[in-house]
Amino acid sequence: MYGPRFKELRRAYGFEDVAIVPGEVTINPDLANTSFTLGQHTFSIPVLASAMDGAVDPAFAIKMGQLGGLAVLNLEGVHGRYDNPDEVLDQIAQASKEEITPLFQKIYSAPIKEAAIGSCITKIKDGNVVCAVSVTPQNTKRLAPVAVEAGADILVVQSTVTTARHVSRSYKGLIFSEFCQQISIPVVVGNSVGYNTALELMETGIEGLLVGVGPGAACTSREVLGIGVPQISATIECAAARDEYARRAGRYVAVITDGGIRTGGDLCKSVAAGADAVMLGTPLAQAYEAPGRGYNWGMASPHPTLPRGIRIEVGTKGSLEQILMGPSSVTDGTQNLIGALRTAMGICGALTIKDMHQAEMIIAPSIKTEGKIFQMRQLLN
Amino acid sequence: MYGPRFKELRRAYGFEDVAIVPGEVTINPDLANTSFTLGQHTFSIPVLASAMDGAVDPAFAIKMGQLGGLAVLNLEGVHGRYDNPDEVLDQIAQASKEEITPLFQKIYSAPIKEAAIGSCITKIKDGNVVCAVSVTPQNTKRLAPVAVEAGADILVVQSTVTTARHVSRSYKGLIFSEFCQQISIPVVVGNSVGYNTALELMETGIEGLLVGVGPGAACTSREVLGIGVPQISATIECAAARDEYARRAGRYVAVITDGGIRTGGDLCKSVAAGADAVMLGTPLAQAYEAPGRGYNWGMASPHPTLPRGIRIEVGTKGSLEQILMGPSSVTDGTQNLIGALRTAMGICGALTIKDMHQAEMIIAPSIKTEGKIFQMRQLLN
Amino acid sequence: MYGPRFKELRRAYGFEDVAIVPGEVTINPDLANTSFTLGQHTFSIPVLASAMDGAVDPAFAIKMGQLGGLAVLNLEGVHGRYDNPDEVLDQIAQASKEEITPLFQKIYSAPIKEAAIGSCITKIKDGNVVCAVSVTPQNTKRLAPVAVEAGADILVVQSTVTTARHVSRSYKGLIFSEFCQQISIPVVVGNSVGYNTALELMETGIEGLLVGVGPGAACTSREVLGIGVPQISATIECAAARDEYARRAGRYVAVITDGGIRTGGDLCKSVAAGADAVMLGTPLAQAYEAPGRGYNWGMASPHPTLPRGIRIEVGTKGSLEQILMGPSSVTDGTQNLIGALRTAMGICGALTIKDMHQAEMIIAPSIKTEGKIFQMRQLLN
Amino acid sequence: MYGPRFKELRRAYGFEDVAIVPGEVTINPDLANTSFTLGQHTFSIPVLASAMDGAVDPAFAIKMGQLGGLAVLNLEGVHGRYDNPDEVLDQIAQASKEEITPLFQKIYSAPIKEAAIGSCITKIKDGNVVCAVSVTPQNTKRLAPVAVEAGADILVVQSTVTTARHVSRSYKGLIFSEFCQQISIPVVVGNSVGYNTALELMETGIEGLLVGVGPGAACTSREVLGIGVPQISATIECAAARDEYARRAGRYVAVITDGGIRTGGDLCKSVAAGADAVMLGTPLAQAYEAPGRGYNWGMASPHPTLPRGIRIEVGTKGSLEQILMGPSSVTDGTQNLIGALRTAMGICGALTIKDMHQAEMIIAPSIKTEGKIFQMRQLLN
Repeated sequence: MYGPRFKELRRAYGFEDVAIVPGEVTINPDLANTSFTLGQHTFSIPVLASAMDGAVDPAFAIKMGQLGGLAVLNLEGVHGRYDNPDEVLDQIAQASKEEITPLFQKIYSAPIKEAAIGSCITKIKDGNVVCAVSVTPQNTKRLAPVAVEAGADILVVQSTVTTARHVSRSYKGLIFSEFCQQISIPVVVGNSVGYNTALELMETGIEGLLVGVGPGAACTSREVLGIGVPQISATIECAAARDEYARRAGRYVAVITDGGIRTGGDLCKSVAAGADAVMLGTPLAQAYEAPGRGYNWGMASPHPTLPRGIRIEVGTKGSLEQILMGPSSVTDGTQNLIGALRTAMGICGALTIKDMHQAEMIIAPSIKTEGKIFQMRQLLN
Repeated sequence: MYGPRFKELRRAYGFEDVAIVPGEVTINPDLANTSFTLGQHTFSIPVLASAMDGAVDPAFAIKMGQLGGLAVLNLEGVHGRYDNPDEVLDQIAQASKEEITPLFQKIYSAPIKEAAIGSCITKIKDGNVVCAVSVTPQNTKRLAPVAVEAGADILVVQSTVTTARHVSRSYKGLIFSEFCQQISIPVVVGNSVGYNTALELMETGIEGLLVGVGPGAACTSREVLGIGVPQISATIECAAARDEYARRAGRYVAVITDGGIRTGGDLCKSVAAGADAVMLGTPLAQAYEAPGRGYNWGMASPHPTLPRGIRIEVGTKGSLEQILMGPSSVTDGTQNLIGALRTAMGICGALTIKDMHQAEMIIAPSIKTEGKIFQMRQLLN
Repeated sequence: MYGPRFKELRRAYGFEDVAIVPGEVTINPDLANTSFTLGQHTFSIPVLASAMDGAVDPAFAIKMGQLGGLAVLNLEGVHGRYDNPDEVLDQIAQASKEEITPLFQKIYSAPIKEAAIGSCITKIKDGNVVCAVSVTPQNTKRLAPVAVEAGADILVVQSTVTTARHVSRSYKGLIFSEFCQQISIPVVVGNSVGYNTALELMETGIEGLLVGVGPGAACTSREVLGIGVPQISATIECAAARDEYARRAGRYVAVITDGGIRTGGDLCKSVAAGADAVMLGTPLAQAYEAPGRGYNWGMASPHPTLPRGIRIEVGTKGSLEQILMGPSSVTDGTQNLIGALRTAMGICGALTIKDMHQAEMIIAPSIKTEGKIFQMRQLLN
Repeated sequence: MYGPRFKELRRAYGFEDVAIVPGEVTINPDLANTSFTLGQHTFSIPVLASAMDGAVDPAFAIKMGQLGGLAVLNLEGVHGRYDNPDEVLDQIAQASKEEITPLFQKIYSAPIKEAAIGSCITKIKDGNVVCAVSVTPQNTKRLAPVAVEAGADILVVQSTVTTARHVSRSYKGLIFSEFCQQISIPVVVGNSVGYNTALELMETGIEGLLVGVGPGAACTSREVLGIGVPQISATIECAAARDEYARRAGRYVAVITDGGIRTGGDLCKSVAAGADAVMLGTPLAQAYEAPGRGYNWGMASPHPTLPRGIRIEVGTKGSLEQILMGPSSVTDGTQNLIGALRTAMGICGALTIKDMHQAEMIIAPSIKTEGKIFQMRQLLN
């Protein structure tokens, strides 16, 4: 005998819902080591630039590498489709609000050219930095060999939601376990959010996992599809999978929180939740060096029948170096992100990123206090 | 010996409180089957148009049927009371804010004409689509035979709150169990929200249940009466009743979430919560083909002494086909609702609506994050 | 051996946090009996008008009684201090925002005149209605005999917070158990919020308890003192005390929710939470018949050193009859409050107020859903 | 065998989340004793003025002492660096929004002068009040002897986050247990938030602990670093540590809630949560006597590479006496803070601050109720 079964709902948390608690020991920020490892590559700062056309072009990728981070170039973006990407980016920046979604749909329906891909990768490699590029699962089998051939160091396979098991009628699904064995460079996969999915993907042999579905500023998946998991909970789940997988398999896969990070505070919370690194879109698209001309837009924006990204006017706020390494001339958390991380690590007594994973966090919604609203009003005026 | 008894309060959830979690397996959207069955009728899309005068007239009902859905015509609305409903709709659209509530009270006090009812139903049937019409419980005994005689295929008996047991002094209450046996066409009843009430109504022999009290954009029952249950919790309860009833009686009654759905995201969440279909008012009243001339209003609006619906200026946003089937040219989730459902089903690995009922959901309030507010501001500007 | 003790915090709920769930049986609203009893007096509608100078004067009290409710005249307000209260009310209505708090402090420091008290009570009694008057605990011993002598039927002893035990250096505290035995008319006491305090007060022999500290629209106790309990939780606690006291002592004391009620929805929620009646300030101060000239203000407003009430411009919205009994020409819940209660009782299957105490309630915050915000914006524009 | 480990998140609460519940006994406010002891000094009001340059200069410190409280002068602020602090304060008040952060960085990089320190302290002592001064941990060893020599009575060692254990490469960390033994005057340390950290700091011999990381109106640590603990939870934890330490060691260390307090309500809630006193910045910077010329700013504002405080235009609202002791001419809780405390103590039946620690508190978010929003709108217009 049993009664009715009601669907159960768990509570999930995002950046705004939580805060980090200071540690019982503090250290000086200059003792904090922020380095992060992906496959055989080690980076001095745990920041990746998103594979968005408003954020990354080859010149930006070189600058990012010189500062100690890693930019990902989208091979299915304007650089992989056009010989004159700068003209296309000008068109996007000049389009009106009404024109932009159809324009995206048109621009991103042009064919991907293998020559253009090769040329981009060569440019980045000529800058003497690690070169990472991204493709979608549908195009991975065709484009991955081209990228490796051209000299790419890291391959990111990215779609809105990625699992180890995908069923398709129109094409034979990408089997990650086979693919990771065949390809000679480290593979990063995403985006994912759940514990089981993360564990299954790690078992396929990937070196990094992008965490996050729906939270980005330029993404409206939550409105359009109802799908989305707040980043703190998503990161906690994937970090638990990473630790469990490391315990079982003796191999450590990088967990990279991707989407929705706007400030140093968000970055610090991602790491405290368990991220080994973060992927930033809009905050880096605000750099003088970014190719977006003051705009950014999501990879789902050009979808032909169901666009769910928007072009956001992000402005230009400072040099990439200032945004990442300071000094900051603002107090809203959008500059000197690494300085913020070092300071937070100091306050939590964390010598390394892995120490910072142990920092205590609390649920403490920030927006509803009048004090903060007062403060926000001050910042806005 | 016992102490004081305090009233207990359960937590309930609405669309804004929750999000859908991607599945551990994904499928291509083209594999998703969105069909839905009501009695002997099967529809390719799980969408009903609300019995609201701003949303449905005979021409709209035909268009809706051609696209694979089902519109419900309100026999107690202007089409059942006037020979010239278009003139009446013009009056409503032209009334000022001050005039509108008294105007509603006057317009909807005109008598319901059997000839007008017959004429509407004939028009819809001439379009070769399934014809659904709605009446209130008070008028069901009188109007239902007229509707069946005129050729209606489905009868919706709808009031603010419907239970299997209603006590009245002024008229002999409608006994659904007797009524369902007498009438020759499938009966859909609503609106309801609780597990027990849903179960009792299903036991009377109905084929469909409309779920939702108070959430619609054009309804102010919550403010006026304090009564209302958020749609996700209401749907979860009624879906549990449906499954329990199917287990006991071997018969599957359609659960239709009705009210408060504005976007593809809301539609997808309704289905993930357990709905077999959804009923839409305002989103469809925004179609070029809708009779409301850019307005919509609720069925409780004309109440003579306690009006609790408002006329909302909804605008016209696209063709009905674009709203339902796309392609979408906007990114806020108000177009290509079925494309959104297919995509969400793909992301959750759901081949059918019943598979989608198994999708995981989380509590993740969307409005209070600054990121989303930033995003919303972008969408509004 | 024991560890640290952390202060524990319970969650409390207000009107906006909850909603009423429809019943499993419904009845026609005309079957609902809304009557309420206080001592030997029975009223056909469970509504008291607050002892606020903006809401009640003798003429208003007569009108309120004729409609079936009960108004409370504040003997320590302008009618108890001035022979020409209308001139004083004119001054208040004409004062600027800057002048108002000092003006209140001046006006309410005039002495209370026994002759003025007698004259007010006589006026109300001449209207052939039940006459209720209010005093503060400090002045009860002096003013209560005057009020009884003049013919008052019900005495309300009211201060911001009232308990059965009050310690004072400057005056011998009022001992309610002695006082209730001495006085010949029913005593209503308030305001209170807790289970134990409510129980202790009921044991002193009072006939009614006013529930609510801090929630009123014209009261800023929560900001100034940090003190306040949301009304739904406060009502649930006091109703539990009433039921426990009735079980123990066989005597039923009326629980009256006082403060913060703006709409029919709030009134219905108060009753569903356990109130036998409600006390309304601002909603009744909006009547054409109200003496406030479109303003209302709290009893704590004139405090000489710590004013914690404000003068609110409430406007005039309709006749007292329309506000209480309808018909309503608005849809925001501010008119036909009793019609709303009857309708809600019908939806919950409640034949009496005591039946309505059994209605199910849920926690369902209303303000944060976008749908409701959209709706609110429509109502405001 | 064990499964995955997910990071757990506790819920924490701030001022806006809670309210105080009236007691079961009430007392007259004139019976409330608000005194507070720090080392051998007793103050008649439990209020400290923050060591912020916008709030405290020597003249202000004298006025504060005369009213029964204690002001803390920041020895590392303009008074410790400049012979002409008034000119520097003029510059700050006259700078534009764009100039202010670089100006802070410049002004606060001037060297601290021992002569200036001595001169300030002498001025305060000449006023015949208790003199408290603050330094950061880095400069404590150098500046503390100077301050003691000049006649300071109380030393505050303050940084964003302070623990008993700090690890540094650049300087030998301050060991509080050694320092407290060496210095002849009471030491107050902060800021801290956790139970364990508070307990460890108390064990070093301090006399007072400042509680609060991130909540102040002029502080953006939460945005920049993601670090912050809401004040009610922080105070509850530190008060539990104080009580535990008193039980173990027989010594009572004052717990002082510092940051985010804007109104009498916030002050009362701090005490009800367990604070022995509060430290106020912005509310006192609004006094006519404050040196900030209508502005206030945080101690982290001038950080050379990661500024995380802002200059807030606070205005001037009344005399210091009016703000602290009334009479109040406003109703928003910003004047007569001590009158508010006395009244709240009366309502809770608390004769002393320690009695007030026993007051019941509830979780009752204030901002989201429409009634309060209506009220706030009234206050703002």
